[in-house]
Amino acid sequence: SRSINLAVIPGDGIGQEVVTEGLKVLSAVLPQDVKLETKEYDFGARRYHATGETLTDADLDALKKHDAILLGAIGDPSVPSGILERGFLLKLRFAFDHHVNLRPSKLLPGVATPLAGEPEIDFVVVREGTEGPYTGNGGTIRKGTEHEVATEVSVNTAFGVERVVRDAFARAQARPRKKLALIHKNNVLTFAGHLWTNIFNKVAEEFPEVTTEYMHVDAATIYLVTQPERFDVVVTDNLFGDIVTDLAAAVSGGIGVAASGNINPSGDFPSMFEPVHGSAPDIAGQGKADPTATVLSVALLLRHLGHEAEADRIDEAVAADLSERKGKPARSTTEIGDALAVRVAG
Amino acid sequence: SRSINLAVIPGDGIGQEVVTEGLKVLSAVLPQDVKLETKEYDFGARRYHATGETLTDADLDALKKHDAILLGAIGDPSVPSGILERGFLLKLRFAFDHHVNLRPSKLLPGVATPLAGEPEIDFVVVREGTEGPYTGNGGTIRKGTEHEVATEVSVNTAFGVERVVRDAFARAQARPRKKLALIHKNNVLTFAGHLWTNIFNKVAEEFPEVTTEYMHVDAATIYLVTQPERFDVVVTDNLFGDIVTDLAAAVSGGIGVAASGNINPSGDFPSMFEPVHGSAPDIAGQGKADPTATVLSVALLLRHLGHEAEADRIDEAVAADLSERKGKPARSTTEIGDALAVRVAG
Ligand SMILES: CC(C)[C@H](C(=O)O)[C@@H](O)C(=O)O
Ligand SMILES: CC(C)[C@H](C(=O)O)[C@@H](O)C(=O)O
Repeated sequence: SRSINLAVIPGDGIGQEVVTEGLKVLSAVLPQDVKLETKEYDFGARRYHATGETLTDADLDALKKHDAILLGAIGDPSVPSGILERGFLLKLRFAFDHHVNLRPSKLLPGVATPLAGEPEIDFVVVREGTEGPYTGNGGTIRKGTEHEVATEVSVNTAFGVERVVRDAFARAQARPRKKLALIHKNNVLTFAGHLWTNIFNKVAEEFPEVTTEYMHVDAATIYLVTQPERFDVVVTDNLFGDIVTDLAAAVSGGIGVAASGNINPSGDFPSMFEPVHGSAPDIAGQGKADPTATVLSVALLLRHLGHEAEADRIDEAVAADLSERKGKPARSTTEIGDALAVRVAG
Repeated sequence: SRSINLAVIPGDGIGQEVVTEGLKVLSAVLPQDVKLETKEYDFGARRYHATGETLTDADLDALKKHDAILLGAIGDPSVPSGILERGFLLKLRFAFDHHVNLRPSKLLPGVATPLAGEPEIDFVVVREGTEGPYTGNGGTIRKGTEHEVATEVSVNTAFGVERVVRDAFARAQARPRKKLALIHKNNVLTFAGHLWTNIFNKVAEEFPEVTTEYMHVDAATIYLVTQPERFDVVVTDNLFGDIVTDLAAAVSGGIGVAASGNINPSGDFPSMFEPVHGSAPDIAGQGKADPTATVLSVALLLRHLGHEAEADRIDEAVAADLSERKGKPARSTTEIGDALAVRVAG
């Protein structure tokens, strides 16, 4: 479309710094005739401390009106663990039905990896975003006593699993290697495991060109460090996806360059794009944060909104920038953002 | 004690081959005056196909009489996923209350790691073995329909968490670095997460010399590949432990050398020792399997039964053997076992 109405959530810690650079690159890459409107929202620790609110119904109504959402990072040590995660990040994913959590991993030339040799890494994880152990189902009895029992219920539905499995097959079909791996733990979590496996095998029949494999999540972590080239597209549940995508980010250049999209493919609600890294309060405000993951999230956002050429330009600019980093002194957040803005405009 | 009455479960695939070598080294290392009795049990795929049984009450009664159990591997593609895992492996861990699942990771000199550089890796994971998402709680409704719902319930008790946390603190206290990390996902799994975190913090007060840290499981996978030297002792839940110990094995020399103990510290039931690897049916019967993980599991077994000196001799023999492997042609299962038996006897 010829206009983008963007909700911007800088959030906590380094969030503001990296989002500033993300928007800089976005403005630079968009053609003159695409009108960019942005509105900033003050969610996160500051607002929570001031008002006790994390994300209200009115907030959701306001966010709903945007074409997409760009988020920096949410989370601060001053807020007890879980409050902002459950009260903001997960609440938003669930409210806007962000069931496709897309996390590409690509090791770009010149980028350092903790792995030996020169592994070829280029895959994308489709993580389910609205079910599994993330639903908040469960509870505690006899809290704080020696008889406390705490449960967590992983909820998996045919509806929820099938739509994300189907999305992953379509993505695999569209890639040159056409490979799809299901990651689960179906030998132990047999109820959820059978649901995932059966639906995966059923949908596979509709995609005869896609080569499939199944692997247990524990084995998958081994392959991610010993044979990362094995992966093309991966589909997995919410919790396994959380774990394997952090590991995937680590082996393919670190969370400084890992982007993600929380996507509602139906378009009923705006999708949200965010770097995989957190708010990193230890380096906040020092201009040390690498905005690359946010800039790559902007590329995912543009691709989602149909601006393919602009998304490609950002990906190319990032690849070029990274390939020239080796041996050079570290640059500030702003310097990296400026360099990328120049490249995408050029 | 001056006698060891051992239950031996070769199991499936490469299980028989590696257990043969494990017993060879065990016999070689034991002093003349320690009487070793072994009884073999035929659990696994063969027995399941022949009788439909995986582990009966009579089996458990028989196993109960032994001082310890040595297991090769259980699992075969001819048996549907979950049957032998839930019906044998997990049934045994739960029946014998193997709540301390001990998994050491040590990168020995000369051993290949997929990580770049020369990381120093020497830590032990204490994985809870009788709770969490492994309890088999949960179920399925409307199976096979588009309205199917499958749940998995993670059950966590103060009793179950405290005993394993306490065990981990005691192990950390006994090591030179005295560090203990709790791995969980307490920002999302808030019910179980708070239980684990509160108990961890409470028990920490009794161990003022132990330095503690908390990390989310996703972040832990990053540290395992970027800063593995950070870890000393780790305590975590059953599922997170399953995942991080496979990754830990991968970075510290591979599952060919990863040993584990399923321990009941009370001694009410025999503890079980097994390599972390599976039955590897693709290489079964070819003499290609590395028995080192089983031999190291025998060392854990001896240590558990109080034969510290013999356990040390095995660890030293394995270290020496591994340090000489580089650049040499691959040896057969038997050749490795023979070499280790010679070393421990010498
Ligand atoms: C912060 C947390 C709720 C979140 C998650 O677990 O999904 C994060 O780890 C992520 O991967 O986006
Ligand atoms: C085979 C399976 C039941 C088992 C587990 O998940 O515990 C295995 O992966 C392990 O780590 O011992």
